[in-house]
Amino acid sequence: MSRAAVPIAIGPTDPPSILLEKAVLEAGAVITELDEARGLIWVGGPSEFPGTLPTTVEWVQLPAAGVEDWFAADIFAEHPGVVFTSAAGAFAASVAEHALMLLLAGIRYLPEHLRATGWRQQDFFPYVGTLRGKTVTIVGAGGIGRALIPMLLPLGAHIIAVNRSGRPVSGPGIPETVETIPSVHLGRIWPHTDHVIIAAPATPATRHLIGPDELARLKPSSWIINVARGSLIDTDALVAALASGAIGGAGLDVTDPEPLPDGHPLWSLPNAIVTPHDSNPPQLRLAAFADHVAANVLRFSTGQELLAPIDPARGY
Amino acid sequence: MSRAAVPIAIGPTDPPSILLEKAVLEAGAVITELDEARGLIWVGGPSEFPGTLPTTVEWVQLPAAGVEDWFAADIFAEHPGVVFTSAAGAFAASVAEHALMLLLAGIRYLPEHLRATGWRQQDFFPYVGTLRGKTVTIVGAGGIGRALIPMLLPLGAHIIAVNRSGRPVSGPGIPETVETIPSVHLGRIWPHTDHVIIAAPATPATRHLIGPDELARLKPSSWIINVARGSLIDTDALVAALASGAIGGAGLDVTDPEPLPDGHPLWSLPNAIVTPHDSNPPQLRLAAFADHVAANVLRFSTGQELLAPIDPARGY
Repeated sequence: MSRAAVPIAIGPTDPPSILLEKAVLEAGAVITELDEARGLIWVGGPSEFPGTLPTTVEWVQLPAAGVEDWFAADIFAEHPGVVFTSAAGAFAASVAEHALMLLLAGIRYLPEHLRATGWRQQDFFPYVGTLRGKTVTIVGAGGIGRALIPMLLPLGAHIIAVNRSGRPVSGPGIPETVETIPSVHLGRIWPHTDHVIIAAPATPATRHLIGPDELARLKPSSWIINVARGSLIDTDALVAALASGAIGGAGLDVTDPEPLPDGHPLWSLPNAIVTPHDSNPPQLRLAAFADHVAANVLRFSTGQELLAPIDPARGY
Repeated sequence: MSRAAVPIAIGPTDPPSILLEKAVLEAGAVITELDEARGLIWVGGPSEFPGTLPTTVEWVQLPAAGVEDWFAADIFAEHPGVVFTSAAGAFAASVAEHALMLLLAGIRYLPEHLRATGWRQQDFFPYVGTLRGKTVTIVGAGGIGRALIPMLLPLGAHIIAVNRSGRPVSGPGIPETVETIPSVHLGRIWPHTDHVIIAAPATPATRHLIGPDELARLKPSSWIINVARGSLIDTDALVAALASGAIGGAGLDVTDPEPLPDGHPLWSLPNAIVTPHDSNPPQLRLAAFADHVAANVLRFSTGQELLAPIDPARGY
């Protein structure tokens, strides 16, 4: 006997998103009105959220990765019997892909190639690098860091993951051979790594994680990629290191200040690549959210642990 | 009882390459003079090659992927009892990495980002794409194509591999789920693929494989990457398609003509990325060759099939 399809509602959009409907149906559930639903996929904000939910609703999927607004609106306290999940992790893959692009473009000398108007093969040969055999340190082992590891390994890079605890990073496509270092030992890493990808949250402890001392200890060939928050890098120190050739270059999707003002040296340094915080653009978000919804509907239907559950006691 | 280490000679360099010596030793062999060797790692050309080899020598590793010169010099016929291997495949990883870089830079709109001198986030949002869920067709399932597949899969791309036979492509990191299509059916692929990577040999049959008809059938968002030979694309048709927006863009490590002359439209089209055939630069070749040597020394020592054996009857 096959298991009955789980009834899931989508709200508050009308008409509903075809992509989300498809994700729910392909995960083996059926779409119903809210008063018959066991799960609710919510694509609106907290202000529109129902004050009371039917007692049938066990689970609500929210559309954002950060749910500070939902805490501020007391939604979780108002629905104590309901499990809420966020979209944390859903958008990590696009940001990780962007970080990989910035790193590859940097080490293969793409900025200078794009300025060329002639066949400068002999000039460029010495500057075309590879990730094969190189060590890439990923600071932050959250969704973005964990998504990056399986993207970098097939290129032959050695990965050092850095998190607070030093507990070995794990996840899909991450072998046990990946080394994980607690962030208190970051100081040992700078002279040994080839490249650095910043994917850690902005906190008082991570402010200016990369400053003059760290930049001085990196290799002259090192690229730094930042897809986290601008404040993790001391911008003035970075500009000086890029201008002097103390490091190879920087690929920045985030800057400090942000937006980066016109005329800032990062716009014109030949070894800086700036993308204006567009690694996860709006038109890619719905598709990524649909994938996340499909995964969680399948987990809900089959009684598995849900992705990104919100813990009201923990505050995220 | 442990197996005796296999004696391997390296010639004709003096002093020998430290990287190659290390590769041989780490594969468990010992380095000897030629007259005691069972294997010879040769880093010179055919003109310096010994007219007679000691009878102890069973295997010779050559330094190039293409060995036309060695056939022309009759070396294989002169040493009928010896197995020769080429470096075919050894340099594929660097070219594959370059192709991945060009594709990612293209679909994430990097060329326009690099021209920006201000924070154009809203302008750029619609043009930042992803490989997730996209179909990438790889024309040519040789070393480069097979190296690309495991690099693209973790990004969530669907791969169609194209070879002459249609026999399923296989190799390290390539799951059986990758679809392989015989090249006679290429015509069906153009409207369905998102992007195309050209990694097939230049032959009379592949000349202008991409011409006006093929370009017209691709999507306006499609990027074409060529890391094979310039002649596989009809350059004039490509320039027209890039200028009209018929396709998204082109990333070219090879061109026709090559070198691409100053003033050619490909230097100035905003959706063309040209790298001057530098995807496998000289300073990366020795390290890649050393990896290949290490793999073959290990295979020779343990009686396994060697990588890239030359078949004098087949002519390569």
